[in-house]
Amino acid sequence: MAKNRLSTDHLKQGILSSDKVLLSRAITLVESKSESDQIQASELINQILPFTGKSFRLGVTGSPGVGKSTFINGFGDFLLNKGKRVAILAVDPSSKISGGSILGDKTRMEKLVGKANVFIRPSPAGNELGGVGHTTFESILLCEAAGYDFIIVETVGVGQSETVVKEMTDMLLLITIAGAGDDLQGIKRGIMEMVDLVVINKIDQIEKDVISKLRSSLLSALHLFPVRDRKPDVEVCQCSSLHSKGFESIYDFIVQYQQNVIANRHFDENRSSQRVSWMRRAFVNMVENFVTKDKKLDAELRNSEELVRANKLNPLEAARHIFGLLKLQ
Amino acid sequence: MAKNRLSTDHLKQGILSSDKVLLSRAITLVESKSESDQIQASELINQILPFTGKSFRLGVTGSPGVGKSTFINGFGDFLLNKGKRVAILAVDPSSKISGGSILGDKTRMEKLVGKANVFIRPSPAGNELGGVGHTTFESILLCEAAGYDFIIVETVGVGQSETVVKEMTDMLLLITIAGAGDDLQGIKRGIMEMVDLVVINKIDQIEKDVISKLRSSLLSALHLFPVRDRKPDVEVCQCSSLHSKGFESIYDFIVQYQQNVIANRHFDENRSSQRVSWMRRAFVNMVENFVTKDKKLDAELRNSEELVRANKLNPLEAARHIFGLLKLQ
Repeated sequence: MAKNRLSTDHLKQGILSSDKVLLSRAITLVESKSESDQIQASELINQILPFTGKSFRLGVTGSPGVGKSTFINGFGDFLLNKGKRVAILAVDPSSKISGGSILGDKTRMEKLVGKANVFIRPSPAGNELGGVGHTTFESILLCEAAGYDFIIVETVGVGQSETVVKEMTDMLLLITIAGAGDDLQGIKRGIMEMVDLVVINKIDQIEKDVISKLRSSLLSALHLFPVRDRKPDVEVCQCSSLHSKGFESIYDFIVQYQQNVIANRHFDENRSSQRVSWMRRAFVNMVENFVTKDKKLDAELRNSEELVRANKLNPLEAARHIFGLLKLQ
Repeated sequence: MAKNRLSTDHLKQGILSSDKVLLSRAITLVESKSESDQIQASELINQILPFTGKSFRLGVTGSPGVGKSTFINGFGDFLLNKGKRVAILAVDPSSKISGGSILGDKTRMEKLVGKANVFIRPSPAGNELGGVGHTTFESILLCEAAGYDFIIVETVGVGQSETVVKEMTDMLLLITIAGAGDDLQGIKRGIMEMVDLVVINKIDQIEKDVISKLRSSLLSALHLFPVRDRKPDVEVCQCSSLHSKGFESIYDFIVQYQQNVIANRHFDENRSSQRVSWMRRAFVNMVENFVTKDKKLDAELRNSEELVRANKLNPLEAARHIFGLLKLQ
């Protein structure tokens, strides 16, 4: 990238004027592992920081096969028709293994690709420094500075991506479908307590009574959790992404939610604490990466872990040993 | 402590012969913040490591007022009558603030205090190096080497103690009571997915239909979670700790659970991965403590956090800044 390096100011001006090519270049810069790129990326992020904060960030999660991409394709188009500008990003902690991201498969986004007010960015190849999602967090800031009204962050792949997406968005949507039974066995452990809106997708393919059974199961599951202090009660909506049905009530809920959390200041306070969490997590990841990138340290770490696993070494002594090797004192 | 220092071998032999005074001394050593004590503690833990692993570790959690201590007092006595040896420890992340632990209040453990086959250790005052619960983890190892059959770890205070206790035990009990309604509003977010057994306490004080309503609410809440791969289904038992009623079925469930997870090897594998988690967490805590204990670094950290909170500094640049100050490279 160094060869055709654009100036930070050039990138900044491009972003502020919503130039998609320059926004893309900036995201590539943020995703780059080269040190000079990282220095420039930091500089750029700091300069655009005053222009961030105005979008609404929507996390979208759900098991494979529930139609997340189709939902984003349809709902994104719905938002465009409402006059909104939409950016779509992905977090994929497994991309290193799977080698590709679903968002890269542009055929699923055929309603959006090429339209003026939409920006689609496939998920970055596995990133290390700062850990899973760190570049996505910076990409969100760049899209925000470029004036997108809605930033949709899709979880791709398996693993802990929901927690990461929850930590960088204002609202988390769970997409689900009516499966074999009326129970919620298909929904991952821990998700139900994190979501702000559940959307039953593909209702065109399922019988009405199956859908209403699922809906009451979901509602009673959500009811069992403690009352949410400053966030509206979780709602269960339904839609057919394929036939663009049901988007209006989803949109209404989102807008109402947004107004509510902005009014009671949860929106701002949540973003502030999210930023501090990101800082802490990134710091820890940097230290961990320092250890695993140093061949000698990494070998010591692996060896200690083996001994700990076999109960031949006290875990806390192992930790002290690795910490001692950092020679901080 | 250095003055009357006992040799590591003396302590070790005392622990292996179940000398409660020497076990107490060893735990004090483990809890000590002095560097020479910590070195000896590490040595001791490594020496007793081959004698650990034979107990069953029971975590006990629940909101204040549900009668955790009364339950442990009664159920501990029940275990003693079954010929079991019982150790009781506490994890209290908030003890720094509250200044004391409930287990320190020995009147609540009146059935157990002074009995031969029971060992009670109040929660340590706030510990830092290695983070919340790190000394409790080592205390468990010491009690195990001393041959206790059951090690009961009680969560005291508020905060994230459940997660910590979950990470150091084989089974997590949630104590609850029938409150105002038949819903589960009194139960903390995220707990229901972590528990292995729910115990409704104080059934002597509540009408039968209220209890059975609560029981079905709890069961249906538990049903909504995905099937547990290698652990028995969560059960809901009920008891009156005050009148020692209902302990038999709780005991039966625990023994069955224990046999089950030992047979399918989940027990061993879970403990191995718990040890590795402890190692990683302790390492991260040591780095974090290093930063906060260094006046200059700590000031930089606080300053950066303020700027990040106010959106005047990119969180990831702030992390890079603090990381850079460690001068690791």
